[in-house]
Amino acid sequence: MKTVSMERDTVHVFAPATVANMVCGFDVLGFALYDPGDEVIIRRVEEPGVRLVNITGDDGRLPRQVSKNTVSASVVSFLQHIGRTNIGIDMELHKRMPIGSGLGSSAASTVAGLYAINTLLGSPLSRRELLPFAMQGEELACGHGHADNVAPALLGGITLIRGYDPVDVVALPVPPALHASVVFPHVDVPTRDARQMIRTKVALKDAVTQWGNIAGLVAGLFTDDYALIGRSMQDVLIEPTRAILIPEFYEMRRLAMEAGALSFGISGSGPSVFAFARSAEQATYVTSIIQTHLTEQGIGSNGYVSGINMEGPRELRD
Amino acid sequence: MKTVSMERDTVHVFAPATVANMVCGFDVLGFALYDPGDEVIIRRVEEPGVRLVNITGDDGRLPRQVSKNTVSASVVSFLQHIGRTNIGIDMELHKRMPIGSGLGSSAASTVAGLYAINTLLGSPLSRRELLPFAMQGEELACGHGHADNVAPALLGGITLIRGYDPVDVVALPVPPALHASVVFPHVDVPTRDARQMIRTKVALKDAVTQWGNIAGLVAGLFTDDYALIGRSMQDVLIEPTRAILIPEFYEMRRLAMEAGALSFGISGSGPSVFAFARSAEQATYVTSIIQTHLTEQGIGSNGYVSGINMEGPRELRD
Repeated sequence: MKTVSMERDTVHVFAPATVANMVCGFDVLGFALYDPGDEVIIRRVEEPGVRLVNITGDDGRLPRQVSKNTVSASVVSFLQHIGRTNIGIDMELHKRMPIGSGLGSSAASTVAGLYAINTLLGSPLSRRELLPFAMQGEELACGHGHADNVAPALLGGITLIRGYDPVDVVALPVPPALHASVVFPHVDVPTRDARQMIRTKVALKDAVTQWGNIAGLVAGLFTDDYALIGRSMQDVLIEPTRAILIPEFYEMRRLAMEAGALSFGISGSGPSVFAFARSAEQATYVTSIIQTHLTEQGIGSNGYVSGINMEGPRELRD
Repeated sequence: MKTVSMERDTVHVFAPATVANMVCGFDVLGFALYDPGDEVIIRRVEEPGVRLVNITGDDGRLPRQVSKNTVSASVVSFLQHIGRTNIGIDMELHKRMPIGSGLGSSAASTVAGLYAINTLLGSPLSRRELLPFAMQGEELACGHGHADNVAPALLGGITLIRGYDPVDVVALPVPPALHASVVFPHVDVPTRDARQMIRTKVALKDAVTQWGNIAGLVAGLFTDDYALIGRSMQDVLIEPTRAILIPEFYEMRRLAMEAGALSFGISGSGPSVFAFARSAEQATYVTSIIQTHLTEQGIGSNGYVSGINMEGPRELRD
């Protein structure tokens, strides 16, 4: 039974950053963070049409045109789908997270916008029904309509994209003590370039290693087996190529693992890195030693510590 | 705590046939059947040394030399490991399943032998500790020491070989209604040839599809989600090549899926095929329509219907 909600005049939404790939699940796994994330405010106005009236926190890097900005463009697609193109909407996007960080920046913005417009109109669609619109937004932002960031940003938790024909999202369980340490080193690795470096052919034996590992990771998540989770999170295919673009990658990994992290790897296409830890304290420690090391090398960074965000987007009451 | 058991004079063991790969888990997944399987009888005798005194059911195809036959060779390795080479052993191997069928024939024999000698000597090793000896047997029989047949034959249930360095076997849960339909068509596909046909390089996008599917299958097994199990069991990498060697493969699949099977695919390197069904009745029906179709095409076959064997090898009390 669908809950019928009232339409509203203003909605303010936060949607989370996400870590895609999770080391052994290239293009199919991802999870949501509590921090950082983006905010979108949508106001209903008299004049029909969708307008982007304010964007902050992007240093002018994002498109201002409604049809080119992923947030407004996906809201327009949503309104066309539900037959409400006559409505008047003013949108604000407040970036509270770095762009080009490998933390699903465009996905966080797009999901915040879609969740906001859906809430404003009384939730005509379910969260899962918003996914295709969010994937369109990714297509516009990154040149490919993958769901490995938008699915966890929208649904929360750890998500598996089993397949795309049709899109099949499986929610995976989250062991209670699991925490993430995330560090964004201030070096520039555009997603498009990072994807282009990856070989289109891989050795079958490496692929077998990879799918043994992803199967082990899923089993570890279902059984709260932290050791199995840790030893499954290895990447013999993508990481060796992408790590080249990330200064100090192997030293950061050594430090994280020495500090007791379960696993360490690249977040999405980088340059952000993440580690899984068994407690908030351990994740805090891992973040701090990685950031200290980067500072010593003259590299600035943002550091985060977060549990796995089971909620996805949430409304902020002003 | 290790249970200390008495040494015995005679042990008679059955070990099961197994289905490796499970469509989307090439070289890493497998499960055990109740039927068919092989039997080994081990008797303690005065004269030191290991002897193969009787082999039946193999049409003379298996080596009679102790060092060349996988069953006796792995028993010798085991005795060397535990320092009991002075013992006298007469072994009988009774093949109760077809050789070269893709149903783990060598694994069933080897596991039966190892389980029998271990039981005879009061179980000095655990089942998991027998695995390396069984893998040595596979090396001798097939030219590669994979564990995807010996692990389920030895441990029962559905097993994942997460990795080989060191070997890491994860037991996966088995949804209660799951049953297997298995058909061995009487055509010859030697394992070595079937492996050699497989390309050593694969497209990354196909590998991504494959690991999305294996992750979905593992999640489906943990949640008793039969529909997810079914739609995850697809193989875009290996099956297209191996299916060429199996007459009527696509017609058998069409018939099985029409009859309500959850999934259909090649068992190991073939030519046996298997389907998952949601009940013994459905599995029985699927086996019968596949065998009927093969008969109409002039192809003989063996048909089996089995739940997932959770036990692995078992002692037969004569």
